[in-house]
Amino acid sequence: MSDYIELPLNGLEPPLSEEERAIQEMTHRFAEDVMRPIGIELDKLTPEEVIEPGSRMWEVLDKAKDLGLGVTATADLEPVQRVRMLALASEELAWGDAGLAGAILVNQFPVMYSMMAGNDEMVEYCDGKLGCWAITEPDHGSDMLDSNGAIQDSQGEYGRPNCVARIDGDHVVINGQKAAWPSGSMTAEVCALYCHADVEGNTSAGMAVIVPLNSDGVSRGKPLDKMGLRAMNQGELFFDEVIVPTSHIIARPDTYQEHSYAMLSEANPQVALMFVGIARAAYDHALTYAHERKQGGVPIIQHSSVRYRLFHMFRKIEAARALTRRVLEYNVTADRPALQGSCAAKITATQTAYEVASDALQIFGGNGMTRAFPMEKLLRDARSGLIADGCNEVLALKAGSMLVNPDLL
Amino acid sequence: MSDYIELPLNGLEPPLSEEERAIQEMTHRFAEDVMRPIGIELDKLTPEEVIEPGSRMWEVLDKAKDLGLGVTATADLEPVQRVRMLALASEELAWGDAGLAGAILVNQFPVMYSMMAGNDEMVEYCDGKLGCWAITEPDHGSDMLDSNGAIQDSQGEYGRPNCVARIDGDHVVINGQKAAWPSGSMTAEVCALYCHADVEGNTSAGMAVIVPLNSDGVSRGKPLDKMGLRAMNQGELFFDEVIVPTSHIIARPDTYQEHSYAMLSEANPQVALMFVGIARAAYDHALTYAHERKQGGVPIIQHSSVRYRLFHMFRKIEAARALTRRVLEYNVTADRPALQGSCAAKITATQTAYEVASDALQIFGGNGMTRAFPMEKLLRDARSGLIADGCNEVLALKAGSMLVNPDLL
Amino acid sequence: MSDYIELPLNGLEPPLSEEERAIQEMTHRFAEDVMRPIGIELDKLTPEEVIEPGSRMWEVLDKAKDLGLGVTATADLEPVQRVRMLALASEELAWGDAGLAGAILVNQFPVMYSMMAGNDEMVEYCDGKLGCWAITEPDHGSDMLDSNGAIQDSQGEYGRPNCVARIDGDHVVINGQKAAWPSGSMTAEVCALYCHADVEGNTSAGMAVIVPLNSDGVSRGKPLDKMGLRAMNQGELFFDEVIVPTSHIIARPDTYQEHSYAMLSEANPQVALMFVGIARAAYDHALTYAHERKQGGVPIIQHSSVRYRLFHMFRKIEAARALTRRVLEYNVTADRPALQGSCAAKITATQTAYEVASDALQIFGGNGMTRAFPMEKLLRDARSGLIADGCNEVLALKAGSMLVNPDLL
Amino acid sequence: MSDYIELPLNGLEPPLSEEERAIQEMTHRFAEDVMRPIGIELDKLTPEEVIEPGSRMWEVLDKAKDLGLGVTATADLEPVQRVRMLALASEELAWGDAGLAGAILVNQFPVMYSMMAGNDEMVEYCDGKLGCWAITEPDHGSDMLDSNGAIQDSQGEYGRPNCVARIDGDHVVINGQKAAWPSGSMTAEVCALYCHADVEGNTSAGMAVIVPLNSDGVSRGKPLDKMGLRAMNQGELFFDEVIVPTSHIIARPDTYQEHSYAMLSEANPQVALMFVGIARAAYDHALTYAHERKQGGVPIIQHSSVRYRLFHMFRKIEAARALTRRVLEYNVTADRPALQGSCAAKITATQTAYEVASDALQIFGGNGMTRAFPMEKLLRDARSGLIADGCNEVLALKAGSMLVNPDLL
Ligand SMILES: Cc1cc2nc3c(=O)[nH]c(=O)nc-3n(C[C@H](O)[C@H](O)[C@H](O)COP(=O)(O)OP(=O)(O)OC[C@H]3O[C@@H](n4cnc5c(N)ncnc54)[C@H](O)[C@@H]3O)c2cc1C
Ligand SMILES: Cc1cc2nc3c(=O)[nH]c(=O)nc-3n(C[C@H](O)[C@H](O)[C@H](O)COP(=O)(O)OP(=O)(O)OC[C@H]3O[C@@H](n4cnc5c(N)ncnc54)[C@H](O)[C@@H]3O)c2cc1C
Ligand SMILES: Cc1cc2nc3c(=O)[nH]c(=O)nc-3n(C[C@H](O)[C@H](O)[C@H](O)COP(=O)(O)OP(=O)(O)OC[C@H]3O[C@@H](n4cnc5c(N)ncnc54)[C@H](O)[C@@H]3O)c2cc1C
Ligand SMILES: Cc1cc2nc3c(=O)[nH]c(=O)nc-3n(C[C@H](O)[C@H](O)[C@H](O)COP(=O)(O)OP(=O)(O)OC[C@H]3O[C@@H](n4cnc5c(N)ncnc54)[C@H](O)[C@@H]3O)c2cc1C
Repeated sequence: MSDYIELPLNGLEPPLSEEERAIQEMTHRFAEDVMRPIGIELDKLTPEEVIEPGSRMWEVLDKAKDLGLGVTATADLEPVQRVRMLALASEELAWGDAGLAGAILVNQFPVMYSMMAGNDEMVEYCDGKLGCWAITEPDHGSDMLDSNGAIQDSQGEYGRPNCVARIDGDHVVINGQKAAWPSGSMTAEVCALYCHADVEGNTSAGMAVIVPLNSDGVSRGKPLDKMGLRAMNQGELFFDEVIVPTSHIIARPDTYQEHSYAMLSEANPQVALMFVGIARAAYDHALTYAHERKQGGVPIIQHSSVRYRLFHMFRKIEAARALTRRVLEYNVTADRPALQGSCAAKITATQTAYEVASDALQIFGGNGMTRAFPMEKLLRDARSGLIADGCNEVLALKAGSMLVNPDLL
Repeated sequence: MSDYIELPLNGLEPPLSEEERAIQEMTHRFAEDVMRPIGIELDKLTPEEVIEPGSRMWEVLDKAKDLGLGVTATADLEPVQRVRMLALASEELAWGDAGLAGAILVNQFPVMYSMMAGNDEMVEYCDGKLGCWAITEPDHGSDMLDSNGAIQDSQGEYGRPNCVARIDGDHVVINGQKAAWPSGSMTAEVCALYCHADVEGNTSAGMAVIVPLNSDGVSRGKPLDKMGLRAMNQGELFFDEVIVPTSHIIARPDTYQEHSYAMLSEANPQVALMFVGIARAAYDHALTYAHERKQGGVPIIQHSSVRYRLFHMFRKIEAARALTRRVLEYNVTADRPALQGSCAAKITATQTAYEVASDALQIFGGNGMTRAFPMEKLLRDARSGLIADGCNEVLALKAGSMLVNPDLL
Repeated sequence: MSDYIELPLNGLEPPLSEEERAIQEMTHRFAEDVMRPIGIELDKLTPEEVIEPGSRMWEVLDKAKDLGLGVTATADLEPVQRVRMLALASEELAWGDAGLAGAILVNQFPVMYSMMAGNDEMVEYCDGKLGCWAITEPDHGSDMLDSNGAIQDSQGEYGRPNCVARIDGDHVVINGQKAAWPSGSMTAEVCALYCHADVEGNTSAGMAVIVPLNSDGVSRGKPLDKMGLRAMNQGELFFDEVIVPTSHIIARPDTYQEHSYAMLSEANPQVALMFVGIARAAYDHALTYAHERKQGGVPIIQHSSVRYRLFHMFRKIEAARALTRRVLEYNVTADRPALQGSCAAKITATQTAYEVASDALQIFGGNGMTRAFPMEKLLRDARSGLIADGCNEVLALKAGSMLVNPDLL
Repeated sequence: MSDYIELPLNGLEPPLSEEERAIQEMTHRFAEDVMRPIGIELDKLTPEEVIEPGSRMWEVLDKAKDLGLGVTATADLEPVQRVRMLALASEELAWGDAGLAGAILVNQFPVMYSMMAGNDEMVEYCDGKLGCWAITEPDHGSDMLDSNGAIQDSQGEYGRPNCVARIDGDHVVINGQKAAWPSGSMTAEVCALYCHADVEGNTSAGMAVIVPLNSDGVSRGKPLDKMGLRAMNQGELFFDEVIVPTSHIIARPDTYQEHSYAMLSEANPQVALMFVGIARAAYDHALTYAHERKQGGVPIIQHSSVRYRLFHMFRKIEAARALTRRVLEYNVTADRPALQGSCAAKITATQTAYEVASDALQIFGGNGMTRAFPMEKLLRDARSGLIADGCNEVLALKAGSMLVNPDLL
């Protein structure tokens, strides 16, 4: 008698509603039929080729619009339902190809953050445009995620910000540059720019403003050549006396900290979902291969040591998914989102993805190392997660500071 | 400005209903005021003293009855609601004292397994009596959890079972012994006995039967002297031509495998909840101590390295709890419980408890090693989890066998 | 054909000389025949009983003197030879019983540190007397190991030291107390005391002085009740205007930092050796048990998963031993010992001992948790290592500060 | 006062002799000036380009010959001295570029294995020729490393070997193919071929024979496109009635097991050395970067959490190196090499390299992921180690079988 019990795509999650199942199926099909093969193709191109007009990346971005999963399209759903639905969808897309899923996701950031700020004009303005989120600077990576200085050295000197915005009447004037990291920046039409504010000669964190990337004074670097998530372009943005109306502002110096707190609380579990998808893709490949590859006289899944490893991969994925969804639901139901929870989800999911991808590669033996098999790409993609949206160590240090109860000191 | 955000007792779980909150408060108070101090006292006694008539263990068992959380009392609740409520309660009790929480839990096993078997007579018979669950044998520990031989050596020989039941007309006759491990066996009135069946001279797995422990022919060994969970007594049970009516049977040879599958699927997340409670207790102690203890010129929580460790403890606990509850809900809503999920929850929670208890002890420095502080007891208690209800390695191997899809071989 | 290859007691170390082999055999026999059974007995006693006149602890301390392995007895050996010999011996003794091995070791500390300081009078004075090393204070544990403030918070305040010595003419006057941690303090005759110095009203780190513990004004607390290493007594030392001649000084404020650097460089790999011994004891027990215990139809060592675990235990022990010996040899041949190496050895060995003890316990299944088997004691003993002589985290932070090259900043 | 202590290139190893120091310096310079820049260039080429006549790979192979470190050149040294010298050299070369170091190493395999077999004719024949070692088959990867079936499923069926040699008078006739994995196979002139033997119609493990790769009937596949170690070519070898004289045999069916045991005992620590070199390269880069990169107001090495990570990287490398050298020395001094020790070294070193490379990348933050910085290549190179020369899991299972003492069963 076999012990085999097949679980649904999303493992041990509670039963799906009709609608949820439909969305899961649609996104799964799109992920499998469209995204995965194109993702593998794009991975082999140079960064320049990926964003060329003829690149199949455009095919994916176009079709993704038809999925109807955009921020505005789902804005009317009851919050818990909305996050459950988006969680389902994000996992499937990233399961198909994480680079492309990332590209789809970042395009939504300007809308998402405008909505978070309650700036309806910008929601409408950004909706349907390709977007990106630019916060990292050449000299300030982790720094920019720590706007309240929670993990700064108490005797250190911050140094100069690389990008500063000042309000001049009813305009914002932007100067400086962002690092090569804003995802989607090479193809974006609008940018949610987070930078320092110059208020009467004093620069301080910060300001957030929607910048049309065809504005005068905006220029771009060349797309970054990197280890993983190669289908998702990234590159520098330069700003030379770029002018946008003040109506484009989504956070001002006095609201910046609260806004950026909310933004990080939202972005972290979003990233987590992507990496749950990667982890599951790696696990699925390994599970299949372990049924096929014979060694030691039997399909290797018959060796208890291989099954043991597969089980632990499964176990970690389930834990990462369960935590991530809990956090998403918590944050939309609680009075205030819990950033330590968001960081916990992001760290757990990205760490899981990296470990599971490496374990899965290992099950392929030598084949795992070659480009003829999908594993080495998945490992390269997974590796990004430990850094993207904040190095896990920095997020943990920052989240750690939230455990300090000043009343007890 | 402080980053501090206080989370509810059960962390990132969704908001509680009124009723849930009431139960959480009641169990929390009982855990803190009654269980914790008595648990610490009992830990220092000899195993014999723990079960003496005057021992304060009895006080806890008595008062626990008043909590109204027994299997029968909650049987009418809608399944998802029931498991959510029990999850809340179990975590709090184990947070108070895991040995005593275990003692309270095992007393319910005969009722729980009778109910699972649909044997209403036994449900009623066992209800309100102190119970225990006896499956482990001196020569067959892991073996007994592997009734379908999924992880047996294909060329090995099982050897003799230590305990065998045979049906003789309308009676069951039991001979042999169980290992010293059945929790609560020294104080139980009824025992859910899982053993081999002798069917016309052939012994095979298995039979499950409710045995009143005051039956003729039953005798007990002496209580086990062990490292942790010392408030929960354990000891050998001997059966010499013990006779019970066949109405006491809850699984027969033909239903044994399915029944024991369901039993393990149920028991594993129950154990997981206990160890989430231990982990949280350890974390809470460490968090408090880190605010109080000064070293390096500041309360140690001000050192980023201490905060970092605390955050990861928090993170693991949240993941373990999220996974465990997901599994509990899955199992009551799915057509068939997923044992691999149950094992995943148990392994994750017990591993978490062990790691978190050790990390918490470490935050106490030298004080962590002394009996004057609660940490060394918590670590000893936590260590049991990696073995109780099945060594984690064995559970993982067994759960791994459930990933093998025979159609793909 | 069997693959079995038996390794010598000390694994993959290079071949022993005749003399080394003799010492290994002598210490191994003593460890096995005398220390181990007595260690198990003492573990079950109260801390008070352990140090009573009739306790068998005295038997061990007496016989240990006859081994001829004291600091002075081996002082004439060529340095590399000496550390190799001591490494062999220490591992065997700790393999027998780590608590008793610790007790034997700490008795040598006053001699060892006097020799390090070049104070021959104190070497002679302490030689043959039971000793202890007292540095930890109630309010300053990690602090005391960080005399140059390398890991202090730059804005914190140290607070008051608990024990201060001042020079008054040709005497040193000591006031205050040490924590309950100095190993062997309940039975020691002399103490190597490391404390703050009061120089013309300013207290600063520090002074080291040999204090006869029968001096006027010395009193002791009661022996500490702790989780592991219970055969090695520990307890508070109080000093009330205790007066010793200045000839007893082994480090003065101006030499204190260099001296304490040398002391930590020496003590850390000594502790490492102890924990290599614990790890090997745990491994040996588990290896034997795995040949005896049948489960799944065969001796459990026949299950690949059990062999796999045993191999990794073996692997870690070999790495810890190899590193520790390298460090010992490095430190006696280099111009200046490398504290980062000493910390690396201590951290690796203690972490290994804790992991291996836990893995070994796991191989015993439930039996591992009971006092009838040796594993739970070994785990309790092993746990101490992560804290003794400095929490591993603190040592790592301190050793980390040694990697900062000021010329590159 | 700074705590900084600079260690020699090889860390905590004992002081070097004059000669050793000279060799270390020579290889270090070659590694830094020649290998490293060329390795980075080759990494970016297609596999075909790497082996083209004009490729700079040839420059490295040519110059490597002048180092005078070949097997025959060092054959006369006293064994312990020889392994110490080779250990020094191998670590430096791999520190420069692991792919190229691998290419240099594998060229020596035919000589090395001929010498091991005592076949002087083949030693002389292979000396100075580019070599490779071909054992892995498409259908038998791990299988081929397990010639005595220690980790085979007892009920499985081995299936057909892909490559078989039969003795026909004074010739060996070879048919079949090897997998795409033999390192250096695209450029090798001679191959140490390990395959099945056909003895009177029965195929069994095995035979080892030196095959000139310009023999009739030999053909090659195309070079493999893989994740890491891209400077070291690999690709399939096909044999169609290839004939070599029996004097080329280095192991026959009756000596094959003993020979392959010796070969694995030798090859594993050789691989270990390579990965110690990778680990150290990654650590060195991270250490430098941590002094340069400012974030949180200070060079990041000033953050205790960064120093802490760097220290643990250092610690693991020292442990891996210490173990590997111990094993090399053990194997040349003991009566019989200890394969479990060899596997322990290989597993520890490759695991260390992978972890350290990932940790080092993490210290570079986003920069770690781009091709403009050396880290992502080092991680890709390091990843190979967990599989090359045997998946670590398989080696551990096999080494585990050496712990089973048949007398105790
Ligand atoms: C795949 C990917 C996608 C990304 N997408 C975007 C995007 O869409 N938009 C965008 O703006 N950016 C994006 N980023 C950039 C990303 O947010 C940054 O790389 C990240 O925040 C780290 O910054 P850094 O690279 O400058 O590293 P650094 O900040 O230089 O960190 C270097 C090292 O120092 C440590 N460190 C830094 N500060 C401290 C401190 N205070 N205390 C202790 N340790 C410290 C870090 O842990 C790290 O190990 C992306 C990055 C990746 C890899
Ligand atoms: C706190 C606690 C509470 C408990 N409560 C109860 C209770 O209420 N009722 C009850 O009946 N029992 C109870 N037990 C017993 C528990 O279920 C058993 O201890 C457990 O199943 C392991 O069995 P064992 O101790 O015989 O170990 P063994 O089965 O002897 O295992 C020894 C080692 O062998 C390994 N091993 C065993 N079989 C295999 C295999 N086939 N393949 C690979 N490796 C294998 C294991 O991983 C383990 O490392 C309790 C135990 C504890 C510690
Ligand atoms: C078995 C054993 C034997 C011992 N033997 C001796 C002996 O012979 N003589 C003797 O004098 N002492 C002895 N000790 C004491 C031992 O040296 C101290 O326990 C140890 O140094 C830690 O000090 P603490 O207990 O005060 O912990 P604390 O210093 O209070 O540390 C508490 C926690 O804070 C963290 N922490 C502390 N400072 C910092 C910082 N600056 N930055 C970041 N984190 C920090 C630590 O990592 C730890 O997690 C022994 C201890 C044990 C357990
Ligand atoms: C960089 C590199 C260099 C190499 N150089 C050479 C070379 O010079 N010459 C050469 O001949 N080969 C070489 N190899 C090949 C290498 O030796 C094999 O890849 C390796 O032995 C694994 O074989 P495989 O790839 O067929 O994996 P498989 O054997 O198919 O293994 C797949 C998975 O199954 C597991 N598995 C396999 N058998 C068992 C079992 N019995 N029990 C439990 N689990 C099992 C493994 O752990 C693995 O996870 C090289 C490989 C690499 C990556």
